[in-house]
Parts: sequence; structure tokens; C-alpha cells
Amino acid sequence: MEINRDLELVKKYQKEIILINQTIGLLEWDQQTYMPKEGAKARAEQHAFLGSLSHEKIISDELFSAIERLKKIELSGDDRIMIERVYRDASKARKLPKKFIEELSKTASLSFNAWQDAKKEKDFELFKPHLEKIIGLKKKEAKFIRLEGHPYNSLLDSFEEGMTSEELKPKFEELKKELINLLRKIEESETYKSQKRVLTKKEFPREYQMHFVKDVSKRIGLGEDYSRVDFAEHPFMVRIGTNDLRITTNIKDDPFFSFGSSIHESGHALYELNLPIEHEFNFLCDASSYGLHESQSKFWENMIGLSESFWKYYFEKFNSKFELENNFDKWLNEVNFVFPGKIRVEADEVHYCLHVILRFEIELDLIEGTIEVKDLPQIWNEKMQEYFGVIPENDSEGVMQDVHWSQGTFGYFPTYAIGTIYATQLFEALRKEFPEIEKDIEIGDYSKIKEWLRENIHKHGRKFTSEDIIKNVCNEGLNPGVYIKYLNDKYSKIYHLK
Amino acid sequence: MEINRDLELVKKYQKEIILINQTIGLLEWDQQTYMPKEGAKARAEQHAFLGSLSHEKIISDELFSAIERLKKIELSGDDRIMIERVYRDASKARKLPKKFIEELSKTASLSFNAWQDAKKEKDFELFKPHLEKIIGLKKKEAKFIRLEGHPYNSLLDSFEEGMTSEELKPKFEELKKELINLLRKIEESETYKSQKRVLTKKEFPREYQMHFVKDVSKRIGLGEDYSRVDFAEHPFMVRIGTNDLRITTNIKDDPFFSFGSSIHESGHALYELNLPIEHEFNFLCDASSYGLHESQSKFWENMIGLSESFWKYYFEKFNSKFELENNFDKWLNEVNFVFPGKIRVEADEVHYCLHVILRFEIELDLIEGTIEVKDLPQIWNEKMQEYFGVIPENDSEGVMQDVHWSQGTFGYFPTYAIGTIYATQLFEALRKEFPEIEKDIEIGDYSKIKEWLRENIHKHGRKFTSEDIIKNVCNEGLNPGVYIKYLNDKYSKIYHLK
Repeated sequence: MEINRDLELVKKYQKEIILINQTIGLLEWDQQTYMPKEGAKARAEQHAFLGSLSHEKIISDELFSAIERLKKIELSGDDRIMIERVYRDASKARKLPKKFIEELSKTASLSFNAWQDAKKEKDFELFKPHLEKIIGLKKKEAKFIRLEGHPYNSLLDSFEEGMTSEELKPKFEELKKELINLLRKIEESETYKSQKRVLTKKEFPREYQMHFVKDVSKRIGLGEDYSRVDFAEHPFMVRIGTNDLRITTNIKDDPFFSFGSSIHESGHALYELNLPIEHEFNFLCDASSYGLHESQSKFWENMIGLSESFWKYYFEKFNSKFELENNFDKWLNEVNFVFPGKIRVEADEVHYCLHVILRFEIELDLIEGTIEVKDLPQIWNEKMQEYFGVIPENDSEGVMQDVHWSQGTFGYFPTYAIGTIYATQLFEALRKEFPEIEKDIEIGDYSKIKEWLRENIHKHGRKFTSEDIIKNVCNEGLNPGVYIKYLNDKYSKIYHLK
Repeated sequence: MEINRDLELVKKYQKEIILINQTIGLLEWDQQTYMPKEGAKARAEQHAFLGSLSHEKIISDELFSAIERLKKIELSGDDRIMIERVYRDASKARKLPKKFIEELSKTASLSFNAWQDAKKEKDFELFKPHLEKIIGLKKKEAKFIRLEGHPYNSLLDSFEEGMTSEELKPKFEELKKELINLLRKIEESETYKSQKRVLTKKEFPREYQMHFVKDVSKRIGLGEDYSRVDFAEHPFMVRIGTNDLRITTNIKDDPFFSFGSSIHESGHALYELNLPIEHEFNFLCDASSYGLHESQSKFWENMIGLSESFWKYYFEKFNSKFELENNFDKWLNEVNFVFPGKIRVEADEVHYCLHVILRFEIELDLIEGTIEVKDLPQIWNEKMQEYFGVIPENDSEGVMQDVHWSQGTFGYFPTYAIGTIYATQLFEALRKEFPEIEKDIEIGDYSKIKEWLRENIHKHGRKFTSEDIIKNVCNEGLNPGVYIKYLNDKYSKIYHLK
């Protein structure tokens, strides 16, 4: 009797928290898409109120006592895992004092504004004192959470449950070395030295771009009855509710921006669409980690969307609308153009993880306290010189390019690289099961792929850690070697390396 | 000290309730505009959760004790009125048992679905048992609320604070008699007998319609930094937050539908935009009543938007886009075309209040219990025959045309007529102060009008009852005579009556 009452109570809390968070999702989506400019002040109030309501619920004593009672009892399969997850989230949230959360939230809000101004003015000095305060608070947070090992683990864990810097550091080190090796080889090739963008410099009318964005999104599995595409400054994906997925895009000159980023966001959305419906309103109906989420977007963006077989289907269609001189090979090379840009979100496949690793290294040192905020621009630029061979012209295209730090988001960046690596591991596992899968991709048929992802990744929700999910499909955990081999094979061909 | 603590607490409650209700506003707006179809189920859950949260807050014992303590104390001006308003809302909400609210909400939800099906199938029998249940519950609600006089007063009061059926009944009786008199005269005129729609039967491209919708909305005062226009099946207005007003429109063949309904919704929005910002997050920052709200939309829709001076400014613009044969008089007559339609929302100015009175009479009898649901179609059609001289072909264009009853909204309809009457009273008062105001309207300059409405209506928020606000500007309360005189003058001219 009492077990049932406790279970019902714990489920009720989860449902309320989920409903609040979905509503917050709508507040955010609306703010990025349709909200009139002057609505921002009221929106901040609505957001803050619902945020604190959600937090109050997860740290509630009533909830925690019920969880503690249930933990002592032998529960059946999914209930047991669900209680573990809620216990994990609740006990972690309860470690942070209310006063601390308020201070962090206020500091982050001011810091975000300062970052916007500083970025606009290209003046790191405006941002510096805020970032110093933020880092002070994040160090404090790590002390409150107090997971084993490096203090950074306590931050990383919020995005990649169970992952540690001890595991990541050597793997990223290896990845960095190999990426730089490959890049130096590419840069020395004749193909690289003579490469020029031609086709992607043409005019690409907005309505055609949107036509392809919607077409590919639908093909990946996002029908208009349960999803939509809107415009926003930055592309993102948000699940407002079961069967209500929203992605955004932005039309730029290069048609591959909206197309590629929409493939990426559609990959995220497909994951959310296939989460286990039987757990609709409890914490198991969630992604297992940010890294696994990113593996889904990168799977579609890189492994599918940048592949030769994918373009065998889409090139003709692009060609007929955009007059690409009927030159398939040139187009494919331009889509996979390697170039040492300074901006992470515009990076090609080979450079991308280097951007991430650079940030990871700096984050570790900042949390350890071995470097200081005042030295960041210099440290950033030195690393850029070393890894990329280029130096940002100013801090706005350097250390201040990303929003993350201004909002106190430390420990997020590594998940971009983790997801990128997982994506290649998953594609390899898929190809083992379906050696001729490229033939499907060539005719734009992704049904086998979608079913395979659903069965092997999506349907598990948050029942297992992402590492366990990956091990179950790939027979090994995070392995940068697979990614390195994939890049070496692919770009040796494109750049005619020896 | 304790007073301050109580005041702060009562303000905190109001702010939270307002933030929740604004968020509910966004959930509803999104559902009507952009939400993918399959998102409906999750949306219902989000809506129900926030609705019950808002209700929990207004009936909270903690809030009520603080109000009761504050009521005993001599507070300064606005605080005193604010406490009265919160006391009123809270004590009324507390009269309804939680179980009753849940039953009403569940019944209304099922009833709404049944109404949708029944309307589609044109089969009143499908809706009948649900409506019977709803009316049973509304009678119960009237007993719980228990205001003086007719039980209907307890329902009416939720929409028109302080108004009673005892006051409305004779006024509506007089209005009905006069409207029918005027209609019979119009119908006997030669102009009426030979009238034909010609200009409004032309083609009106969608983009031009939207151009005019946005133009007039902006002219009424809704700049794009704090408002927007979107498409929805039914036009409506919602304030999502301070400086965040949303109106919707729907493009139909008759260009006057989107244009006129957008003028109407802009009138609502302008009211909300000008509510007293110093009370942003308490109950004084609200409309005084639904009737007064409607007076603002009807003011712009009827008194401005259907006037000769208004069209002196807009006709040329319409003419240039829609090729109206340069025939100003014909266009003006078509815009004010009198015709006994069966649908309330499509009614002309002369028929409109008759639709409302018909519903008011039926509501009174239903709540009194002197008529039964099973007889409604017959009663409806008899009244239509008597007042309009036409009979609906089926119940979907008759008794089932409006959504209100299916959702348990009894007491709302009269506010449409109240607002329509107030609008003419306000226009008369405006003209007393600015006898040459038509000259401004002729050049599309509404600045004096907007300022006058702000000073006399909007800025009061909910500090006074709507009747007091109207008395203060017009030197008398609700007076259908002003409306009757306005219609007689205007339509005698249009239809050349003796």
C-alpha cells in the first residue's frame, strides 16, 4: 500500500517537473522565433518563476523521503531504474544551497549581458570581471557536488553522466595528435593548395533553401503533424511535448548552412521523438546524455549528410534548383572543404574536434586554478596558432565566440566531441549489420537506419548510461580511433594523400 | 512591519498568478497558431497543470489570511483598492469546492469534444447529454457563488463585475424592440430590396489583405516591437506579457473579414498595452470587465472602422490594390451591408446585438430551469424566425454555432452587447470633447483618440468597475438609447428611410 503511494507521489513529482520544463521550452522557443523584442523583460520573469518552481520540486523533502523509502525496497525493472535516476537528480540538486543557486543565476544573467556587449565591442576587458566571478562560483559548485577525482568531473557529470576527465584527457590527447597529423598532411597536399570554393559561392534563393530543409527533415522522420521548422538566429531543437518537436534554422549565403544544420537538428529531434512513450512523464523519457544526443545529430549531419551516397540522391535536386554546373565531384569536395576557420560552429569535420579540445583544456585549467582569466585571450590565441596555424583577429572571433562560459556552462563542450566520435562508432556498427546500407542512402531511403537507431539508441531513453548504450551496440566505449580512421580514409581520398 | 510583510506576500501571490496566467496565454496562442497537430495531448496536460497551479494560489489560506488582516487596516489609495480586488477574487474562488472545479473542468473538456463532433455531424443529439450536464453544474456553481438576485447574476459577475440580470433585462428588452423596429423599416426600403454585393465579391489577394491588416493595426498603436499578427482559425488577442501583445487573423474571401476583425483585435490589444504599468504584476493591471474590453474592440471596429471618415482615408488605398471601380459610395454601403445572416460572428452592426440578446434570454431561462435542453433547437429557431425572419438550415448554423456553452461559459454573451453599446457612448463623449475628430480620422491620424482612450479608460486598469469608468466619461451608465440613436441616424441615411 505505502509503496504504491510513494511510487505515485514520485511519479507525480516527475510529471510536474516535466510539464514545467516543457513549458519553459516553449517560452524559450517563442523567445527565439516569434516574440516581439519588447517582450523580453516579462519573458525573463516568466522564465525565472517556472525555473525556480521546477527546482523547488526536485529538491522537495517530501519527494526525497519517498525516494529514500523506495530505494530500500525491491522494485520491478523499470521502476527500480527510474527511482535510481530520480534519486541521482534529486540528491545532486539538493547539494546546492538555494542561496548559491540564486547567486549563480543572477551572476550568469549579468555575465551573459556583459558577454553580448563585450563581443559586440570586441573588448574582453568588459567581460573579464564577470567571467572571473562565474568561474569562482563554478569552483564552488564543484565543491558542493564533490564527485570523485578531478573537480571538473562534478561539472562534466551534469552533461555526461558518469564520464570523467581522467577518461577523457588521454583520449582527447590522442585525438588531438592524430587530427593535427592529418591536417598537416592535408595542408601539404597539392589538392589543398589549389582548392577554391566555386559552387557554394553561387546564389541560393531562400525559398529553395527552405524547400530542401523541409524535405530532408521530413525524410529523416519529422512529419509536419508532430514537428515544425521555423527561423531563428541560431539553429536549435526543442521538444515542447510528446509529438511536438521544433527545430529552427537560419538562411545564410552558403546553402549548406541551413541544410546541414537542419539535418543536425533533425537528428536531435528524431531521438526525442522515439524516446520511450511508456515513460512519457517520468525521468526515463529523456536522453541518456548530451554526448549521446550529439551523436544522433552528428550521425545524420556527418555520417549521412556529408557522404557521397547521400549526395548521389540529393545532388541532382540541388543541381536543378541551384545550377551547380552538373559537377558532382566539385560539389562533394566543397561540402567537405577543409579550412582552418576560427569559428567552431562553422568548422569542417576535421577541424571541429580541435575546437572542442582547445576549450576542454582551458576549462580544466580554469577549474584547477592553474590559469587565470586575465590570461585567457593569450592562451586561446597560442593554442589556435599551435593547433590551427591561425590567430583570431580579435577576441570576438577568439575566446569570446561561444555563449557557454558567459552562462556558466562548463563541462558542456566535451560532449560535442564525444557525440562526434560516437557517431562514427555507430555508423560502423550499422554497416556491420547492413553492409550495403549505402545503397539505401543513395536512393534517399533511411527506413532501416531510423529503425536501427530507434532499437539501439532511442528507445532506451535514460535507462542506461550512454557509455553502456554505446558498448551494447559497438562492443566498446568511447573510441576516438574509429573517428580518426574514418577521417583518414575519407580525406586521404578527397585530398589525394599518400 | 507586519503590514509590510503581508502586503509583500499578497503582491508575491498576485505576481505568481499573473506569471502563470501569462504562460497559459502563450500555451493557448501557440496551440492556435503554430503547434503541430499531434502536440495537442501534451498541451492539454501542460494547460491543466498550470491552470490548477494558478487556482491553488488564488485559494491559498496563507494568501487569504494576509488579505483578511490587511482589510482591517487603513491602507493608502491604490493598495486599498488592490486588496479589495484580490479579496473579491480569492473569496469567490474559495466558494467553489476543489472537487466541483475538477468535475466542471472534466465535463467541459468532454463536452467541447462532443460539441465539435456534433457540429461537424450537424446532430444536436450528440451534444445534448453533455450540455445537460454542463447546465446542471452551472446551476450548482450559481448556488455556490450565491450573489443577490437572479441565480444568473453569479455567473454574469465573472465577466461583468457588478452587473445584474435585473439591470440588463429591461435594457436588452428595449434594445431588442428598437432593433427589430429599425430592421423592419430597413427591409421595407427600396434600397434594401435592390441591394447587391458587388465590390466585396472581387478577388482580394492574401498578401494585400495582410498588408492592410498590419497597416491598420500599426496605425491603431501596435508597433512591431511589442506586438505581432499571426494566422489562426479564429481571430483573437492575447497579452503574453507587458509589451507583448498578439493578435491573430484569418484570410477569407471577403477582405473585410481580416481587416475588420484585426481592427477589432487591435482595439483589445491597445487596451491591454495601456494598462497601468505601475501595477504590472498585481490585479489592478487588468481590464475592468469583459464588457469594457469589448467596448474597446467595438469602438475601433464599429465607430471608427465602419465610418465614412475612416474610409475617406483607406478607400483610395484599397481601391488601388483591389480595383474597386473607384466607387466610394458603393464600397461604404457594402461595408455597412445589412443582411439577416444566421451566424453571430458574421453579423452586421444592426443585427449583431439581436444575436446576443437571443442567447442571453435562453441562458436566463436555462439557469432558471424554465426551459429544457432538449427543446433548445426549437426555441432557437422560433426566436430566429421572430427576430430575424430566417430559420437556420441545421443546428450547426443554429444553436450549436458558438463554442461558449460547450465549455460552460454562461454569462459571457451579454458582454458583447454591453461593449457594443458602451462603444457608441464613448464615441459620443469623445465627439463632445473633440467636435471635429472626424477630420483627424479622415487623414488616418488617431493620436487624439488613442490618448483620450488611454486617459479615460485604459490607464484605470481594474481600479474601478466598468460602469463607474463609463459614468465618469459619459455621465451615465449603460444606455442602449445612444446605440439605438446612432444606428437609426446612420442606417436611415444609408437605406434612405423616411
